[in-house]
Amino acid sequence: MIIVMSNTADEAQIEAVIKQIKKQGLDANISRGTERTVIGAIGDERKLDGELLEALPGVEQALHIVKPYKIVAREWHKEDTVINISGVPLGGKEIQIIAGPCSVETPEQMALSAQAVKDAGCRLMRGGAFKPRSSPYTFQGTGYEGLAMLREAADKQGLPIVTELLDIRHLDKFMEYGVDVIQIGTRSMQNFELLKEVGKTNVPIILKRGMSATISEWLMAAEYIAASGNHNIIFCERGIRSFETYYRNVMDVTAIPVLKKATHLPVIVDPSHAGGKAWMVPALSRAAIAAGADGLLVEAHPVPCEAWCDADQALNPTELVDLMGQLRGIAKVIGREIQ
Amino acid sequence: MIIVMSNTADEAQIEAVIKQIKKQGLDANISRGTERTVIGAIGDERKLDGELLEALPGVEQALHIVKPYKIVAREWHKEDTVINISGVPLGGKEIQIIAGPCSVETPEQMALSAQAVKDAGCRLMRGGAFKPRSSPYTFQGTGYEGLAMLREAADKQGLPIVTELLDIRHLDKFMEYGVDVIQIGTRSMQNFELLKEVGKTNVPIILKRGMSATISEWLMAAEYIAASGNHNIIFCERGIRSFETYYRNVMDVTAIPVLKKATHLPVIVDPSHAGGKAWMVPALSRAAIAAGADGLLVEAHPVPCEAWCDADQALNPTELVDLMGQLRGIAKVIGREIQ
Amino acid sequence: MIIVMSNTADEAQIEAVIKQIKKQGLDANISRGTERTVIGAIGDERKLDGELLEALPGVEQALHIVKPYKIVAREWHKEDTVINISGVPLGGKEIQIIAGPCSVETPEQMALSAQAVKDAGCRLMRGGAFKPRSSPYTFQGTGYEGLAMLREAADKQGLPIVTELLDIRHLDKFMEYGVDVIQIGTRSMQNFELLKEVGKTNVPIILKRGMSATISEWLMAAEYIAASGNHNIIFCERGIRSFETYYRNVMDVTAIPVLKKATHLPVIVDPSHAGGKAWMVPALSRAAIAAGADGLLVEAHPVPCEAWCDADQALNPTELVDLMGQLRGIAKVIGREIQ
Amino acid sequence: MIIVMSNTADEAQIEAVIKQIKKQGLDANISRGTERTVIGAIGDERKLDGELLEALPGVEQALHIVKPYKIVAREWHKEDTVINISGVPLGGKEIQIIAGPCSVETPEQMALSAQAVKDAGCRLMRGGAFKPRSSPYTFQGTGYEGLAMLREAADKQGLPIVTELLDIRHLDKFMEYGVDVIQIGTRSMQNFELLKEVGKTNVPIILKRGMSATISEWLMAAEYIAASGNHNIIFCERGIRSFETYYRNVMDVTAIPVLKKATHLPVIVDPSHAGGKAWMVPALSRAAIAAGADGLLVEAHPVPCEAWCDADQALNPTELVDLMGQLRGIAKVIGREIQ
Repeated sequence: MIIVMSNTADEAQIEAVIKQIKKQGLDANISRGTERTVIGAIGDERKLDGELLEALPGVEQALHIVKPYKIVAREWHKEDTVINISGVPLGGKEIQIIAGPCSVETPEQMALSAQAVKDAGCRLMRGGAFKPRSSPYTFQGTGYEGLAMLREAADKQGLPIVTELLDIRHLDKFMEYGVDVIQIGTRSMQNFELLKEVGKTNVPIILKRGMSATISEWLMAAEYIAASGNHNIIFCERGIRSFETYYRNVMDVTAIPVLKKATHLPVIVDPSHAGGKAWMVPALSRAAIAAGADGLLVEAHPVPCEAWCDADQALNPTELVDLMGQLRGIAKVIGREIQ
Repeated sequence: MIIVMSNTADEAQIEAVIKQIKKQGLDANISRGTERTVIGAIGDERKLDGELLEALPGVEQALHIVKPYKIVAREWHKEDTVINISGVPLGGKEIQIIAGPCSVETPEQMALSAQAVKDAGCRLMRGGAFKPRSSPYTFQGTGYEGLAMLREAADKQGLPIVTELLDIRHLDKFMEYGVDVIQIGTRSMQNFELLKEVGKTNVPIILKRGMSATISEWLMAAEYIAASGNHNIIFCERGIRSFETYYRNVMDVTAIPVLKKATHLPVIVDPSHAGGKAWMVPALSRAAIAAGADGLLVEAHPVPCEAWCDADQALNPTELVDLMGQLRGIAKVIGREIQ
Repeated sequence: MIIVMSNTADEAQIEAVIKQIKKQGLDANISRGTERTVIGAIGDERKLDGELLEALPGVEQALHIVKPYKIVAREWHKEDTVINISGVPLGGKEIQIIAGPCSVETPEQMALSAQAVKDAGCRLMRGGAFKPRSSPYTFQGTGYEGLAMLREAADKQGLPIVTELLDIRHLDKFMEYGVDVIQIGTRSMQNFELLKEVGKTNVPIILKRGMSATISEWLMAAEYIAASGNHNIIFCERGIRSFETYYRNVMDVTAIPVLKKATHLPVIVDPSHAGGKAWMVPALSRAAIAAGADGLLVEAHPVPCEAWCDADQALNPTELVDLMGQLRGIAKVIGREIQ
Repeated sequence: MIIVMSNTADEAQIEAVIKQIKKQGLDANISRGTERTVIGAIGDERKLDGELLEALPGVEQALHIVKPYKIVAREWHKEDTVINISGVPLGGKEIQIIAGPCSVETPEQMALSAQAVKDAGCRLMRGGAFKPRSSPYTFQGTGYEGLAMLREAADKQGLPIVTELLDIRHLDKFMEYGVDVIQIGTRSMQNFELLKEVGKTNVPIILKRGMSATISEWLMAAEYIAASGNHNIIFCERGIRSFETYYRNVMDVTAIPVLKKATHLPVIVDPSHAGGKAWMVPALSRAAIAAGADGLLVEAHPVPCEAWCDADQALNPTELVDLMGQLRGIAKVIGREIQ
């Protein structure tokens, strides 16, 4: 950590900072510049509390120079982590497209969905049983019944399942149903208690980015899961909030190369929630794969305009097949593959 | 709801929209303009799913014209709601300043804090026992032990207490300790399961705005609590995320008059988390009260630079007293009062 | 335009709105809903001033249903516009990569740059003679001398040139030098006087998006140029401002399909200014092309770490060649081509 | 400047950085930490180009520790600057409310406006002759004719005038008309050529903040004016862009104390453009003054609902008088005054 003193700071104030640094078990290096004195704290700065130093008189700012996350950082783990999802690898050369409906509705809808997902060549299936909805007056998901329908339909096609965990109290049931990937939604990215609990399992976790989470906060949220023992974490970019109203969120494509550099863990993208409209999904999907994403999480529905939620953002089975074709082409260009 | 058809929409597509509207129990009014046909859905549009209509061919957009929230809306409840917090009124003519430390640390710190809060003339005390921290490696709060310390220190000064609930599983204990106001933090604003649970109690709730929540989403989050039966809701603006890095968040002062118009419920402001630095707190506090806030939630600590968290944003006892003096003056100018 | 009355609006207020609509030459359709009365203005709503209507008592909001731009809208011009840049087509099947240094420095640097641009297979060259810098104390560009160097170096390789116009008073000289494409920078997107002036020429214009311009404002800025007579407009997405600090701007990849739907004009992307670091450029470039961009504007320099500005974001000649290879592959997958 | 090396940087790379620093005339201090080597550049870091250093191999980041602005910084000029606007002081104990219509329309409207401004007790008058409008198809201002009307109406009431300069080519005429304060609008904040030109006059300049300008960019824009010789600069906060759609912009009230700390120059606020609705203006105005603003720029019109632009955001004469009364009360509480 670098502590920049204000240009009016006196010797006593500089001494107080050094004392505080040493008290916390680090050493100090002092550099007296033309306009400012700068103090470097030498040792493990993760132990230092910047706010405490900034509260001292004469301190202008305390700058972190080491990232606050460690287990998830590529700096300490050079090779890409490949996560084994019930036999399907994610994070290696093979790109995975996870598809399925926004919400689990009926056994028929699920059977058709699973068939379409399989036919398009996707190896993993998504489906929401518990839905976080902005309004208390709208459909809230089919719950455990939905979970059972998802499990059954996916099993028939041999597809591992991905579904969102909203409530810490549901975790046991999720384990019972053998959910293959637990999704932590955008609104739960900083639900630290939830992160700690899923961190105690060894189920792969898809950690969606918070609506306006910085990449650093996102990495720290993953570090919560990792620090509890579960290193099977998949980052999922799903669009961030901006001033633009033409579409729902800005898909942050830059986050892909940035994360691939910062962490060894896989990075996927949800183009459906990012754009919010089905017609945008192919372009956004191609962009994500071209930028280096390890996979996608795409909404698909047998008959989108009859979907119980997000009707305007799901692909139909034909569109999903077409998209898979384009993505296979792009994967090849960048030296990767899609089954 | 207003459904705007694209300029290439044909009669069959218009008919399909009308059919869908009628199927959902509403009536349709058709207006054929020069460039567009516009269909108005007549009836309770809260029942209509805009996404479902936008998924129909030929539809350009579906615009809500009625707000999706009802219980919290001033439209249906003209007079200001005054919430009784264990004898202290919030939302009426009297403005309430809630003060106390970021985190409960020790019995001594709490006794000094409560004394300072009382001496400054504040009638309610805040203190965090469970802390949501960005890093898993930093201090996470003193937990139930902290809750007991807060209860005891505040009781000695006759101050009702405000503290944050992070985990649905802690609610029973919060009830046992007789927490007077449950705070739902910014990261939990859309933790809908938590909202539903606190909605089943009748304890006053401070609902902090999500980091980048729109006012509409915030009102809908409150509607979740209200729809579960608890109408004792207090909105708390705490700064929103922006591109600016000079300070932590932008305190959204405009949200105050906007909310006071949109809802009958009280609106308070947390100037400490908004700005992130103690020296900004007096200016932000004065602005909030001048703009019409019903109260403040302010961090204060007996010795800020020794605080275990947020050391750089707490006021010391003298600063708190000074601030209260300024706020009393402003309250008077706008026809309100502070004890 | 749709005018939504408040639920307390009376007949006289409704009448006043209708009167104002008719006064402006449009007709009114009234729809009395359960909670609200809604008035539709029938006729050319571009003539209606929404603010004027919103200022009337009893009006809750006035909603535009027709886009305020016309010449640039695809609605009125279905086929893609292909712009002829001194013989090089932009906006058709062939994708164009425009490359060159941030700033024109010396004749040697420009000769090497032009050679590298040509060798990589790019058909257009960029270079800044006048530079908009955040600080008055940093290098401000080589001015007309730079323009001459750019012209000469590019001519030797047969490359049309793209350069930024900062000051309305420079336009005549730009015409003299036969600048092939005038770039309007992000800070000038709403410099309406400048837009009107370049609108009087017939030189192709690259209109960069303002730092936080909405897509609608951007289209309106283009409409300014078009309304002055010049329809040779190329949109250039260059990243928008967000809360993220890991990179300079968020490249708004969603803007590509959105613009391609909204306008018939070409859309290109500047991946260099978006990300701000050379190592991000290949990923962002691939994403842009995969999403459907008609071209790129990329910074390249013979020896990046010696560049006089933006040293950390330029590609070196080898990196440019490699990138072109990847982009050719992606172009082919989506049915387009790069020479 | 602090240069942080990556944890894989070798000695040669460290040497190269030191060489580059020394080449630019500064000295280097090396601090070898546990995980990183950090190099401090000692001397005037304003001369150092961070991008150039970040382009060197092995460099992770280059951090500025000294602010890049100097003339406008309070660090170098402790006392508040009071600007004399044709006899009216701005920036001292007396707070100034500048009022008037969005746009100059007719001599009658201007006479009534000036009368209302004077009667309310305001000492300065605003009015737009040249209007930057989002659409080329809407009213663009009355131009020089409007300037003459403004001059005449204000002169009759003894009010100095404030008006916006859009085009560098209009400056001579502005000088002829003796414009007392030249306003640089939000869209021109980084029109550096315009800033340089007004910097050559000695007319007080109101520099509005760009739609999404950081405080640092804003200070640098002021530094452009100051570096050209004109130190009579007034900062005007007018709302920044955010994701919220309930109102036009977020009035950044935090910018007031932050700027008052960073610069010795006066800071005013435009509550009318921030909120975008007349009913929000009183609350926002009170907040701005309570937070320490030196003045306001408020839209007022004799008959708002007949205004040619921004009809929904102007105060009428009675509202202006009421507001002035409230502001006088708040000014007194914080030890200031309004005539």
